[in-house]
Amino acid sequence: MRATVMFGAGDVRIEDVPDAQLVEPTDALVRVTRACICGSDLWPYNQMEDSETGQRMGHEFIGVVEAVGSDVRTVNAGDVVVAPFAWSDGTCVFCREGLHTSCLHGGWWARDGIDGGQGEAVRVPQADGTLVVLPVGEDDALMPSLLTLSDVMGTGHHAALAAKVGPGKTAAVVGDGAVGLCGVIAAKRLRAEQIIILGRHPDRIALAKEFGATHVVSERGDEAIERVRELTGGFGAHSVLECVGHGEAIVTALGIARPGGSVGRVGLPQHDEIPTTMQTFFDNVTVGGGPAPARAYIEELLPDVLEGRIQPGRVFDRVIGLDEVPDGYRAMNDREAIKVMVTP
Amino acid sequence: MRATVMFGAGDVRIEDVPDAQLVEPTDALVRVTRACICGSDLWPYNQMEDSETGQRMGHEFIGVVEAVGSDVRTVNAGDVVVAPFAWSDGTCVFCREGLHTSCLHGGWWARDGIDGGQGEAVRVPQADGTLVVLPVGEDDALMPSLLTLSDVMGTGHHAALAAKVGPGKTAAVVGDGAVGLCGVIAAKRLRAEQIIILGRHPDRIALAKEFGATHVVSERGDEAIERVRELTGGFGAHSVLECVGHGEAIVTALGIARPGGSVGRVGLPQHDEIPTTMQTFFDNVTVGGGPAPARAYIEELLPDVLEGRIQPGRVFDRVIGLDEVPDGYRAMNDREAIKVMVTP
Repeated sequence: MRATVMFGAGDVRIEDVPDAQLVEPTDALVRVTRACICGSDLWPYNQMEDSETGQRMGHEFIGVVEAVGSDVRTVNAGDVVVAPFAWSDGTCVFCREGLHTSCLHGGWWARDGIDGGQGEAVRVPQADGTLVVLPVGEDDALMPSLLTLSDVMGTGHHAALAAKVGPGKTAAVVGDGAVGLCGVIAAKRLRAEQIIILGRHPDRIALAKEFGATHVVSERGDEAIERVRELTGGFGAHSVLECVGHGEAIVTALGIARPGGSVGRVGLPQHDEIPTTMQTFFDNVTVGGGPAPARAYIEELLPDVLEGRIQPGRVFDRVIGLDEVPDGYRAMNDREAIKVMVTP
Repeated sequence: MRATVMFGAGDVRIEDVPDAQLVEPTDALVRVTRACICGSDLWPYNQMEDSETGQRMGHEFIGVVEAVGSDVRTVNAGDVVVAPFAWSDGTCVFCREGLHTSCLHGGWWARDGIDGGQGEAVRVPQADGTLVVLPVGEDDALMPSLLTLSDVMGTGHHAALAAKVGPGKTAAVVGDGAVGLCGVIAAKRLRAEQIIILGRHPDRIALAKEFGATHVVSERGDEAIERVRELTGGFGAHSVLECVGHGEAIVTALGIARPGGSVGRVGLPQHDEIPTTMQTFFDNVTVGGGPAPARAYIEELLPDVLEGRIQPGRVFDRVIGLDEVPDGYRAMNDREAIKVMVTP
């Protein structure tokens, strides 16, 4: 079968790879009908050292089940399913607590011999725990929004929860990428009163406003901090959704948090330390977040998607075939596209 | 009047200073009957640069009101009162949210012309917001425990709240100083099932066990992390109370947090950055805490003290007069005393 393999920074190819197939009795074999390129894929796209064997790619997909192992109970051949960006058994202590990304028997796509989502098919381990059957046909008009449940919408929701968004609060979203935009949706959905988006790309800002952003801060660094403080009575935001991951973004996020506020960070950190200051401590600012247990959120968010109350699929502004995936990476990296959908 | 002044590292003196007196109509004048030396006082005791003018000291005290300004409504001359370690108006937006340490019109003892607690008397700004009247006489047997409401018991409680201690959870307390010991009390009070104290001073460990610690880890660094993991099924603690503040303690605290767990830090940080790792992010570990809004907790904790359900006053193992304060600093710094009470 054909799948995306990254061989180094800027070097993405579509390669022939071994066909996905059932191995364990808990596996499902899924033919991928929709996949994505993720903002987090751009980190290796810019930094990966050259590799002869390469790295399979892709961790967001919807597909049709082709076959299931003998122990699979909740998924059947022919089902349309969405997979979250980590696979998990759904039964371990962490899954039961809703932290599927820490599943004792789970793991990550495109690692350790597991297929990636940016390809024709995927062997899905722990199919009962991992997959959610969607009550729609494989080409349903809601596909873009349903696909965001695999990662970006769940990640935006996770940022909002970690930042303790709630009714009447001020939420600030750092970053106007697909996750930041979904963070705006999540903050609005959780009834934040004031939603400030920090970003500077006109197309993304326009979408953020449609999603519910009430204010836009296009400045950076100290100026951005000052501007958010002006918008919040001098205090800062109750809830800060850090949706980027690099150092400047987290410094900004900490700088705009109100005393007693919370920063929910979901951008893949590019540094080990959290660059807090003594002010962070004296202000009793909490820093939480991490990879979203997207699997935990699918059932909660799914009705809102199916009934059209949220439309996170609008973050996709380009749809490509598998052969165009290398150019899809380039387009996202050049900020030509917010988020790219792949139809293998 | 006489009060404690620090002139540099290791140089604590009892000096004649201007008498405390009413200045603002919202002030109270309090004659100090009990004060403390705090673990946080040991940071300047070890690090302060020499100063000709010196620095007043002390932020924990109980006393008797001598006089009140014309605008004071809730406190009267003759009342026995406890003061939290920050003064606050009790009416601003942050006080109403229970974050009195961020009071818009508040501040800190022994700074900016305000008296310190380690002296004969204190001018208390914002007396209505700051002081809590105690329903006891000035020499009541409960004085030691009541005095801990000014700081260490409230701080231990804050660490437990920030670490999200709850029924059935595992709590780990890093540090066996007075705050750590109060953290054990707080964790027990909030019904943690397993309470692990990390410390190595036999007298303090013995007290921790009496307060409710179920396990003791006396190792340090990586060995401590490994030992806590052994005690927690390999996972780490749900709730970690970081009651020290220096770098090794916070590294340990992060290292023993379970995926999805929380670190509540109340030890005055000696470094700006929080030394998280990628594992902290991937484990979705939350870091919260800061200076405890002790004022917010006094009413909640007071009944438990008055009715003897908690006995945080047992952390005091030395009582001295004002003249002996310099030796009290030495004794705490040499770990001869856990916490020193001063009777000016």
